[in-house]
Amino acid sequence: MTPERVEEDIDGAVHSHVETVLRRYLADRRAGLPEQAQMFATAVDTLSDFALRGGKRIRPTFAWWGWRAAGGEATGERAQAVLTAVSALELIQTCALVHDDLMDASELRRGHPTVHVRFTEAHRAGGWLGAPERFGMAAAVLLGDLALAWADDMFTGAPLSEQMRAAAREPWLAMRSEMFAGQYLDVLAQAEGDESEERALGVARLKTAAYTVERPLHLGIALAGVDGDTVAAVRAFGTDIGVAFQLRDDLLGVYGDTEVTGKPAGDDLREGKRTLLVSLGLRYADEAGRHADADLLRGALGDPGLTQETIQRVRDLLVEVGAVDELERRIEKLTESGLAALDASGLAEPGRTRLADLAVAATRRDR
Amino acid sequence: MTPERVEEDIDGAVHSHVETVLRRYLADRRAGLPEQAQMFATAVDTLSDFALRGGKRIRPTFAWWGWRAAGGEATGERAQAVLTAVSALELIQTCALVHDDLMDASELRRGHPTVHVRFTEAHRAGGWLGAPERFGMAAAVLLGDLALAWADDMFTGAPLSEQMRAAAREPWLAMRSEMFAGQYLDVLAQAEGDESEERALGVARLKTAAYTVERPLHLGIALAGVDGDTVAAVRAFGTDIGVAFQLRDDLLGVYGDTEVTGKPAGDDLREGKRTLLVSLGLRYADEAGRHADADLLRGALGDPGLTQETIQRVRDLLVEVGAVDELERRIEKLTESGLAALDASGLAEPGRTRLADLAVAATRRDR
Repeated sequence: MTPERVEEDIDGAVHSHVETVLRRYLADRRAGLPEQAQMFATAVDTLSDFALRGGKRIRPTFAWWGWRAAGGEATGERAQAVLTAVSALELIQTCALVHDDLMDASELRRGHPTVHVRFTEAHRAGGWLGAPERFGMAAAVLLGDLALAWADDMFTGAPLSEQMRAAAREPWLAMRSEMFAGQYLDVLAQAEGDESEERALGVARLKTAAYTVERPLHLGIALAGVDGDTVAAVRAFGTDIGVAFQLRDDLLGVYGDTEVTGKPAGDDLREGKRTLLVSLGLRYADEAGRHADADLLRGALGDPGLTQETIQRVRDLLVEVGAVDELERRIEKLTESGLAALDASGLAEPGRTRLADLAVAATRRDR
Repeated sequence: MTPERVEEDIDGAVHSHVETVLRRYLADRRAGLPEQAQMFATAVDTLSDFALRGGKRIRPTFAWWGWRAAGGEATGERAQAVLTAVSALELIQTCALVHDDLMDASELRRGHPTVHVRFTEAHRAGGWLGAPERFGMAAAVLLGDLALAWADDMFTGAPLSEQMRAAAREPWLAMRSEMFAGQYLDVLAQAEGDESEERALGVARLKTAAYTVERPLHLGIALAGVDGDTVAAVRAFGTDIGVAFQLRDDLLGVYGDTEVTGKPAGDDLREGKRTLLVSLGLRYADEAGRHADADLLRGALGDPGLTQETIQRVRDLLVEVGAVDELERRIEKLTESGLAALDASGLAEPGRTRLADLAVAATRRDR
C-alpha cells in the first residue's frame, strides 16, 4: 500500500481529508483480501459504509490541531503521514461504535440501522438457519474486531519517522486501554445500578475525556515532538473539555432531538446509563424529600418499555430538582478551566485558537 | 515497559517461554492501567487467567521454529525480541477464543467456564440489574477487544530492527484479516446451511491454515530475512499442514473425548459447524441412497437439544458412508505434500526437523 496523499490544504477541511484518507484505506484493504474471502468483502462493505457515513471525526480533528498547535507542518510529507496516523482514530471509533451498539442493543445510529441489525435483517430476509440475532451479533463482533485490527495497521503503516513513532507510542497505547476500561466501567455501573457521582465521573474521564479529547490531543502534540510541561497542560485542557463534552452528551441523551442525535428520544434512560445527570438528579430529588420522583427516575432507568410520557416526566423533574442547571454550571466551569490550561500551554497559532474553537463547539448547547 | 527477557534456552521449551513472556506482559499492562480503572483491572485478571490457562501455544511455536529454521539465532537480543513478537500471537488467539465462545454460546473452554459465562455468573451472583447474559456478552466483547489491541501493542513493542519490522508487516496484516474473514465465512456457511466441500475448505484455509500455521510460519521466516521462493515453499507447507490440522479438528469435534478436548461431546454438530466431514458425510450418504441418514445428519446440525444417542448414530453413519476414511486419507495426503514442500524449502536444521515434528503432531489421531 502506498502512503495516502491528499494534495490540498488540510487545515481548511480536516474532516473531509480524514474521510478521503479513510475511504482510500478501506478500499485498499478490501482489495487486498484473498480470493476465497469475497463473501467477507461484501460484509466489509457494510462496515465501510458505516465508517464513512457521517460522524464528526472529532478525534482526528483534535489530534490534527494538536499537531499543528505544537508546531507541526500544514503540508508536506510529514503532514501527510500525520494525517494518515490520526485518521486511524476513526477506525478505533468504528470498532467502538459497532460493539457499543451491539452491547446496548441499539437499533439506530446516525439515523440508520446499526451493523448488528443489518446482519440480523439479512439473516431474516434469507430465511437462514439459527437465530437471526445470533448471526447479527457474530457479524458485528467480527467486523468490529476487523476495524480495530485495521486501525492499528493504518497507524503503524503511516510513514512516520522512528522518533515520531516512539513519541506516539504512549498516547496510542493508553488511549485504547482507557477506552475499553471506560466502556467496561460504564456497563458495570449500569448493571450494579450505581448512583455515585464519583463513578459516573470516572467513566466520563476514561470513556470520553481520555479517549475522545485528551489522548488524541496528546498523540498530536507527541508527533510534533512536544514533551514535559506542555504535555501536562494540553492533557489538562483535554481532560476538562472531554468531561464537559460527556456532560453535554448526558444532557443530549435525555433532552436531545432525535433528528439531530439520530437516536430515539430518551435513549440513555431506556439503556439505564449511569450518568452524572442521573446521579445528581437522584441525589437532589432525595435531598428535597421528593422520594417519589427519585423512585420514578430509578424505575425509568433501564426500562425497555419506557413511554414518552414517563420520559417527559423525568425531563421535567431533572430540571425542577436543579440537576440540569448544575450540569450546565459544571460544563461552563470545565470549559473555562480547560481554556485556561490551553492558554497556559504555550501552544502556537493558528492551532491554539482552533483548539479553543473546537472545545467550545464540543461543549455548547446546540452541539 | 522494558523488553521481556528470558534467560534460559528458548529452543528447549518454546511453550513455557511464551507463557513467561505473556505473563509478564499482561502483568505490566495491568499495572499500567489508570487508577480510576481498578475495577476494570479485576476484569483483566479474568482475561489473563483465560490467556494463561492451558493452550498449546501452537502459533508462537510454529513462528519460533520458522525463525530458527530460517537461520534466526536461538539466544541473544534478536532472539528475545522475536520471542516477544511471536508471543503476541497468543493475545490474538485470546481475542479469537473469547469472541468465538461468545458467538457459539459455548459454556466451556479447556474444561473451564468461558469468559462470557464467568461474567454472566458474576452478574447473577450479584443480583444486578438487567439481563445477566447481556452483561456477560458486553464483558466478553470488551475483553476480547482489549486482547486484540494488546496483541498489536506487544508486537509493535518488541525491539525488532526496522528491517525486521518491515519484513514482518505483510504476514502480520494478512494473518489477522484472514482470521476474521475465516470466522465470518464459517458463521455464514453455518447460517446458510451450506453443504459444499468448496466452502468448507475455504473456511479451513482462512480460519485455520492461514491463521494457525501458514502466517505464523511466514512471520517467523520473514523476521529472519527470508524472501522469494523459500517463502512460497514454506507457505505451501503451512497451508497443507494447516488444512490437515483443521480436518483433524473436524474429526475431534465429533469423535473427540471430552476429557481431552475440554468441550462437550459432539459440540461441532450441536453448533451446526459446516465442516468438510459434514459435507462429505452428506454427499456420500445421498450418493449411497441413504437419504434418511443424510436427513438425520442435517437435522442434527445446529440442534441445541442433540441427544447422546443421536450423536452416536451420526458418528456411526459418518464412518459407514466412508466420510471418516476419506478425511483420514486427505489428512495423510496433505501431511505428505506439506512435508515434501518443507523438504524442498531449503530451511536449516534443527528447525526443519522440528517443523516436521510439529506438523506430524498437529495432524495425528491422538493429538
